[in-house]
Amino acid sequence: MNNDKSEVKRVHLDNAAATPLKSEVFSVMSPFLTEEFGNPSSIHKEGVRARRAVDEARSSVARTLEIKSPGVIFTGNGTESNNLAIFGYVKYLHRIKKIAYQDMEVVTTKIEHPSITGVMEELIDLGVFVKFVEVDEEGIITIPALEAVLSEKTVLVTFAYANSEVGTVQPVLRLVRRIRKFEEVKGNEIKVHLDAAQAPLWLPCAFKQLGVDMMTLDAGKCGGPKGVGVLALRGGIEILPIMQGGGQEDGVRSGTENVAGIVGMAKALELAQANYKEKAESVAKIRDEAIIYLQEKISTVIVNGGQGEVRLANNINFSIPNLDTEYAVIYLDTHGVACSTKSACAGAGGGESIVVKTITGDATRARSTIRFSLGENTNIEDVKYAIDILATHCEKMQG
Amino acid sequence: MNNDKSEVKRVHLDNAAATPLKSEVFSVMSPFLTEEFGNPSSIHKEGVRARRAVDEARSSVARTLEIKSPGVIFTGNGTESNNLAIFGYVKYLHRIKKIAYQDMEVVTTKIEHPSITGVMEELIDLGVFVKFVEVDEEGIITIPALEAVLSEKTVLVTFAYANSEVGTVQPVLRLVRRIRKFEEVKGNEIKVHLDAAQAPLWLPCAFKQLGVDMMTLDAGKCGGPKGVGVLALRGGIEILPIMQGGGQEDGVRSGTENVAGIVGMAKALELAQANYKEKAESVAKIRDEAIIYLQEKISTVIVNGGQGEVRLANNINFSIPNLDTEYAVIYLDTHGVACSTKSACAGAGGGESIVVKTITGDATRARSTIRFSLGENTNIEDVKYAIDILATHCEKMQG
Repeated sequence: MNNDKSEVKRVHLDNAAATPLKSEVFSVMSPFLTEEFGNPSSIHKEGVRARRAVDEARSSVARTLEIKSPGVIFTGNGTESNNLAIFGYVKYLHRIKKIAYQDMEVVTTKIEHPSITGVMEELIDLGVFVKFVEVDEEGIITIPALEAVLSEKTVLVTFAYANSEVGTVQPVLRLVRRIRKFEEVKGNEIKVHLDAAQAPLWLPCAFKQLGVDMMTLDAGKCGGPKGVGVLALRGGIEILPIMQGGGQEDGVRSGTENVAGIVGMAKALELAQANYKEKAESVAKIRDEAIIYLQEKISTVIVNGGQGEVRLANNINFSIPNLDTEYAVIYLDTHGVACSTKSACAGAGGGESIVVKTITGDATRARSTIRFSLGENTNIEDVKYAIDILATHCEKMQG
Repeated sequence: MNNDKSEVKRVHLDNAAATPLKSEVFSVMSPFLTEEFGNPSSIHKEGVRARRAVDEARSSVARTLEIKSPGVIFTGNGTESNNLAIFGYVKYLHRIKKIAYQDMEVVTTKIEHPSITGVMEELIDLGVFVKFVEVDEEGIITIPALEAVLSEKTVLVTFAYANSEVGTVQPVLRLVRRIRKFEEVKGNEIKVHLDAAQAPLWLPCAFKQLGVDMMTLDAGKCGGPKGVGVLALRGGIEILPIMQGGGQEDGVRSGTENVAGIVGMAKALELAQANYKEKAESVAKIRDEAIIYLQEKISTVIVNGGQGEVRLANNINFSIPNLDTEYAVIYLDTHGVACSTKSACAGAGGGESIVVKTITGDATRARSTIRFSLGENTNIEDVKYAIDILATHCEKMQG
């Protein structure tokens, strides 16, 4: 299995695709993968202990996000959380509130994760009107752009806290405030769903600081196990399930709870949020130093996305026009550096980046992206090491 | 956390709700919960190793089920597999084959798991005609009953291989043959979906021995981890996804793969099926001896479901009319025995068993069920120990 593990040092610059599972997380999970195997729906002691573990995890996530426990729904991953948030709320409006699909407008951007854009296509198929708010060249939703798409039929606005490819961080609270003001004036109810999958390690996720109604999280992107997500709901938000069954998770997500995964998710989120600010500050410094070094070393580099505060602390996304960056990523890999051309879910290899195409309008740039996503323990030497290898590769390609 | 673990011996007779995770399964999972954290969609070495692990797990499941690898879809659990099989196929017929919902008939029984019956309610809502085939007093679908519901509009038949409450094993191949004959005569295509969540430890699951088109499995019910399921498809069966996203699992189930869970699922299934026959024979002997002992000790006991071959090797489901069996289960628990009144997903505690109500028509019996579900290592002394405690409790209740 491990015979292809190279002996050279590995530099992991693909933390947006997958974070290492923290040892503290593994520690809290392992009892539930060994002696503690109860089903939380069982009424005997083994079941009660499993139930208690799930409840404690729920309380922990609720504490971290500063919401009430019943608002925490454990799912199979961020993709499921996104599907559940949007379909679940639209279905609720349709079935319970008796709003026709044709009378609903949903607002999103064109730079979202495939689990959002895919859902939009399904909504359109149902008859819902999907409006794409424009983003600027950094990928930011501006207030005027938002104002241009809100209407009296808007029921839901959904976007990513931090873009998974170019790392653009949206001014969430500002956007939400504008939406609330619009609601006040026009009288319609608009819910805001935030895909925060890339956020917990670097950005504040407490609901009160963001003002949103629903939030998607994914354990595998913040130091926890793959196969667990959270859909967090502010008090009073109602959604319908997208899968039917035993009625677990307050009737919203059926299926025997992944106890070990849930316990791991809660621990990972707690650790991620405990010191996100310090981590973000120190990693952003490395990021910015690395960007300067990158531009010095490879003169044709163009950074995609914003700078400073509007960029996720760990994201370096750039284009090297006319370079076959899929091949470059493979070259980097053989020399010890794991990175990506774009988001793993959008096809980690070649092809055009829809995100970069959307924000820059430049197909050449969109076809030649590379994403370095740093981890909590990445140091500047690691990134410079990667840049040196890439620079060597670029020289070869030009020579 | 463990301060309520009693020091007395624990007898686990609730294996239908949750099986212990086997140590061999934990061993193959743990690398993917520690150093191997790659995202299978990433193109670098870490990603490639994760992809290879998922592919090998897929091949392993395919080998065990005797189907081709692309037919193995990893999901979040049995509930999701059931939802995906039924919605996914009906959606495929609707969107791709352009069959109106009103022109589709789906056949099932009234004794299915909530993740089937719940889906049926949604189908009805869409306009699909759901026909409930009658089961006899043992819970068996008979050929005449099946014939009575098949029609030229039937597109799908779905039922459980072994009922999770009363353990009734359906004569799958016989039913499928009758369906194939019907297809030949009438010319319509009918797919058969089998919910085999309770089967792998005790019954053959190779597709060729069953003749079905789709099969649901759940790792947590056969010695693997919670939070992973399989939907297995015979070659040529097409379905559409029920969640949208990055297009993982051949476009049918999006979301970053739960690598550790998937690897664990494959190992658990392989182990479960390796010697199911020997296990089933030895456990069925214990089951039958226990049933006799039970009837001797508690004269009012009525066994629910069938006998011998038509009963899952590890299932003992019985009623003690007019006994508060929820209280009895709690009494058993405090004396070291973990068991259930019915299926965990149907509410493991009190209330009426829909399954027993359906097959017996007897509300008193349905309100007083107890389910013992044995494990691979349960011995007759364990079960007699449980029965003795229950007998003592019954005497007290009568006294």
